[in-house]
Amino acid sequence: MEKFEIHILGCGSALPTLRHHPSSQVINLREKLFMIDCGEGTQIQFRKTRLKFSHLNTIFISHTHGDHCLGLIGLIQTFSMLGRTAPIHIYGPQDLKDFLQPLLEFYKKSIGFPVNIHCVNFRIMDLVYEDRSVEVYTIPLSHRALCCGYLFREKRVLPHIRREMIDFYGIPNYAINSIKEGADWILPNGECISNSSLTFPGEAPRSYAYCSDTCYLPKLAEVITGIDLLYHEATFCEENAARAQEVMHTTARQAAMLAKSAKVGKLMLGHFSARYENESTLLKEAQQVFPQTILANEGLVVNV
Amino acid sequence: MEKFEIHILGCGSALPTLRHHPSSQVINLREKLFMIDCGEGTQIQFRKTRLKFSHLNTIFISHTHGDHCLGLIGLIQTFSMLGRTAPIHIYGPQDLKDFLQPLLEFYKKSIGFPVNIHCVNFRIMDLVYEDRSVEVYTIPLSHRALCCGYLFREKRVLPHIRREMIDFYGIPNYAINSIKEGADWILPNGECISNSSLTFPGEAPRSYAYCSDTCYLPKLAEVITGIDLLYHEATFCEENAARAQEVMHTTARQAAMLAKSAKVGKLMLGHFSARYENESTLLKEAQQVFPQTILANEGLVVNV
Repeated sequence: MEKFEIHILGCGSALPTLRHHPSSQVINLREKLFMIDCGEGTQIQFRKTRLKFSHLNTIFISHTHGDHCLGLIGLIQTFSMLGRTAPIHIYGPQDLKDFLQPLLEFYKKSIGFPVNIHCVNFRIMDLVYEDRSVEVYTIPLSHRALCCGYLFREKRVLPHIRREMIDFYGIPNYAINSIKEGADWILPNGECISNSSLTFPGEAPRSYAYCSDTCYLPKLAEVITGIDLLYHEATFCEENAARAQEVMHTTARQAAMLAKSAKVGKLMLGHFSARYENESTLLKEAQQVFPQTILANEGLVVNV
Repeated sequence: MEKFEIHILGCGSALPTLRHHPSSQVINLREKLFMIDCGEGTQIQFRKTRLKFSHLNTIFISHTHGDHCLGLIGLIQTFSMLGRTAPIHIYGPQDLKDFLQPLLEFYKKSIGFPVNIHCVNFRIMDLVYEDRSVEVYTIPLSHRALCCGYLFREKRVLPHIRREMIDFYGIPNYAINSIKEGADWILPNGECISNSSLTFPGEAPRSYAYCSDTCYLPKLAEVITGIDLLYHEATFCEENAARAQEVMHTTARQAAMLAKSAKVGKLMLGHFSARYENESTLLKEAQQVFPQTILANEGLVVNV
């Protein structure tokens, strides 16, 4: 199966600690890299993964709180020092431009490639990026800033060729692509070999949603129903539910309730408050509601 | 002797590596903290020292290349989250304002204390900061940016009291300060006890200079003659001297030549290029010219 990996670069919250870095993750989808959020120090965390910097062309920012975007300008400058000339595309709510443009202007002499900022519609679910393998949609969230999550939906995977049947009928190479697209094959004697004898179905398309930062939004379940993996913030445990509500964050239990009602395959908790010495309480609390829960951690790689 | 420590938070150069963080250091002078430069990730490096964030009120920036200042806004926001209300003062060449002011403006709602930016005269040696224990001067450097180093000169340390003499003559506590300042003591019978019998000299004032980034400037020796500790960039080794000149940096050997002609007490090399797997060549090269040379390293604490 082709790669669809989530690399956790940082899963702490606003106050950095010696245990967690601020928010960032890299998605490796068939060797094309996508970044979501880019807190301070992300470029060093990125380097640790040994993924290729040059395979990253697209960055999605959830919102402009410092722990989600302060690493952008350093990352951009490093790319430039490494000789990058290919454009980079950065998606985010409209104030991302107000944050980033003055920095790009200040450092323009040292940035040798185009940086394209795309303001996304963060109030509705909107298709903001598409290539031949994936569609990316915004997910409206509710936080103390213009904020959205992102939903990655893999496109339909083409069926696989039954090599032994191709050989048996002596079907030439030039016909393979059209057969993958669904064509039958006509033998010289006029006999039709149906597509279903020549192929077997590709894997089911996979999906991943990133929801951080946000207060608990039960209705999110509608838009992430049945996805394979949900990364959801769980800044607090239930004991601090009042505080969570006040600062528009979610508790681990609430994240699990959402995962359960959306019937997702797996839940990964992140964006941990600096107040917890470890996250075992958060994990336990969530697993009581939704057993298929794991904790994010720097360096963790999860297959969707 | 009272503290005058240099804590190295980062001593790499522009391209961050897994071995070195970008430039930053904290000076602990009698429990008052001063920061010089603040590259990305400095707040985490600072936290590792276990020094008290609240004891830092003054930051000196050499120049606005990203590896010397991108950590400022994150540090400021963290201070605010921790409840700081005391103002912070940041000194640097005039374009520091162009870099930092838009960020402060963007994040103004989340910064709960005054951030005062002071543009320094970086073309001449200028007294830019003074308190009762130290004077800080700019050191004009030559780089691909408006850039200066900083010289910390400890003020004269008051003489120490000879406790046994104070007791012997029954001198009251209220007189101690004036005796420290140089006064004699007159006994009830009119006899004069000279100050020199009541005190012994304080330690010689210490001095520290930070010179990064710059090309090799032999005439710097005049302004740093006889200082106790010199931190000087040594981005390259002699083999890359042409490259050093081209990008306005210094080689380890050149830094040592400067240290030797300025007769400093000790030389610490830093701002290492990412191209070196370790800095043993740089150290060897410098020590051949100036044996009292050490390498900076993250976590190193040097007493001036």
